Amino acid sequence: MRIAVVGATGEVGRTMVKVLEEYKVVPSELRLYASRRSAGTTMKFGDREIIVEELTEEAMKKGFDYALFSAGADVSRRFAPIAADHGTIVIDNSSAFRMVDGIPLVVPEVNGHLVDDYRGIIANPNCSTIQMVLSLYTVHREFGLRKIVVSTYQAVSGAGRKAINELQKQMAGSEETSVFPRKIFLNVIPQIGSFEESGFSTEELKMINETRKILDDPAIDVIPTTVRVPVLYGHSEAVYVETRKPFSSYEKLREVMEKAEHVKFVDDLVTPSEVAGSDIVYVSRLRILDESRFVFWNVADNIRVGAATNAVRILKRLLGAKR
Amino acid sequence: MRIAVVGATGEVGRTMVKVLEEYKVVPSELRLYASRRSAGTTMKFGDREIIVEELTEEAMKKGFDYALFSAGADVSRRFAPIAADHGTIVIDNSSAFRMVDGIPLVVPEVNGHLVDDYRGIIANPNCSTIQMVLSLYTVHREFGLRKIVVSTYQAVSGAGRKAINELQKQMAGSEETSVFPRKIFLNVIPQIGSFEESGFSTEELKMINETRKILDDPAIDVIPTTVRVPVLYGHSEAVYVETRKPFSSYEKLREVMEKAEHVKFVDDLVTPSEVAGSDIVYVSRLRILDESRFVFWNVADNIRVGAATNAVRILKRLLGAKR
Repeated sequence: MRIAVVGATGEVGRTMVKVLEEYKVVPSELRLYASRRSAGTTMKFGDREIIVEELTEEAMKKGFDYALFSAGADVSRRFAPIAADHGTIVIDNSSAFRMVDGIPLVVPEVNGHLVDDYRGIIANPNCSTIQMVLSLYTVHREFGLRKIVVSTYQAVSGAGRKAINELQKQMAGSEETSVFPRKIFLNVIPQIGSFEESGFSTEELKMINETRKILDDPAIDVIPTTVRVPVLYGHSEAVYVETRKPFSSYEKLREVMEKAEHVKFVDDLVTPSEVAGSDIVYVSRLRILDESRFVFWNVADNIRVGAATNAVRILKRLLGAKR
Repeated sequence: MRIAVVGATGEVGRTMVKVLEEYKVVPSELRLYASRRSAGTTMKFGDREIIVEELTEEAMKKGFDYALFSAGADVSRRFAPIAADHGTIVIDNSSAFRMVDGIPLVVPEVNGHLVDDYRGIIANPNCSTIQMVLSLYTVHREFGLRKIVVSTYQAVSGAGRKAINELQKQMAGSEETSVFPRKIFLNVIPQIGSFEESGFSTEELKMINETRKILDDPAIDVIPTTVRVPVLYGHSEAVYVETRKPFSSYEKLREVMEKAEHVKFVDDLVTPSEVAGSDIVYVSRLRILDESRFVFWNVADNIRVGAATNAVRILKRLLGAKR
């Protein structure tokens, strides 16, 4: 098995390599690609020391079995189709192909079956969407989701290493802002991505469109406000839900939510600093309003659950299907 | 005019004294009260140097014209009735009397008329409630509020000076937590107050009950999630609203929202660190979903708009009514 990781030196790329190792994916060949600037550095994978190579079109023609991409939408748009054309199954963490018809947008626990006989590019959803969908897909199956109002509290790591550096410099006294539109230290910023004509941000539109695509239901009404907070790792979401069919009672609702894979219920509360490094979505503060409306708080490691681990779980599903 | 400020050395108390001066309230006598621990310190009011006195029952029997209380619910419960019994109009910032029948709960721009011929205790609402109600009362008058789903991003100063110190110590490396249930630095905590049987926190119940009381409409469905964030001053709220009557268009809705007093519309976005020291509620990121549903982001200085300035505005209303 030959695997390439593209964007290997970034926040998500590094974690992909780590999670591959943790999840005992043992490729005969593992190649790591990055921009020219990062090429030449060394990364560890188990006992192996791997030198990061510059990403080139030639490299993407090597016919890897799998390539995990996390180097931004522009890089994916240029290089992922080349890899796919050369027989590589691409798991792409960027937004480039997520809403393209025919490209599966996959959270394995929810719609992993889509990749079972699939070759080509597979899209890894947006981080905020993954953790929300993971905590709600069993509710959707059982009762149907009618409406979701969600406010996010998103960690700076979601904007990459540069963003973490910007917060850390501000913590040390810097007033400089370049990644974020305002100072993020001791502040919160209700803008992730850019604003579209409708007033929604690109991040908010991802939550709307990707939730519908993953749950395969265009009628779900998703109303997000996405907000950056001065947290390093771990996205949180305050989620209000209306269901189509009544769930009857708190106990019944909770029973259905607890069926979700890789989701853990906590009775009091969970905060993002507690979940860094975990592959679980933590649900807490479940409150019901009546038989078809409830509110809860969910928290997950955005780099792992929201990106790297989801990609590796897709890969594991592909591998499992072949055995 | 003789005025007392009770809890004068706290975050809100100090700001009350400052706002009294800024708003040109010139009492012939201004007495400042605090706990025994803080008594003896000196505070400035214009040219005057005022020595803070220990709060006693005797002091509250002096028959001040007005007393502004901000020393917590227990202190208010014990001392405010004594002051009121001795002819003082009390403006109380604590939660002690807010939901008591017959006690007006006042945001002057919204229901200031309630205090015009009133003597006794007047309650100042919860900070999160004030800024939400200020940005929505004209919408309620014009179209009727059916449902509000609100997620808050609340500054640590809302929990007082001790809370600010706790965050600042954590910024300097401390792992200690005593005010907050978790570390607040580089974290967010979905708990303000304590959790009640229903799963809602006391802060969330305040937003539900106080919004209904201030807007004089028990049918408004308020669904809050209140969250502490590592911000010093300035609460933010992501607010989803359903109206009873359609507002027809973005322009019409915006026109109605812009009629609200002390509310300012901003086209792109506003963050809490920009509003510290201001007496305005800033509304931004207005997005409409259809003719009767919209979302927006509001930000205000929680110590001023959410507490001290509202109290002084109540006092100004009382003074205006007498002239």
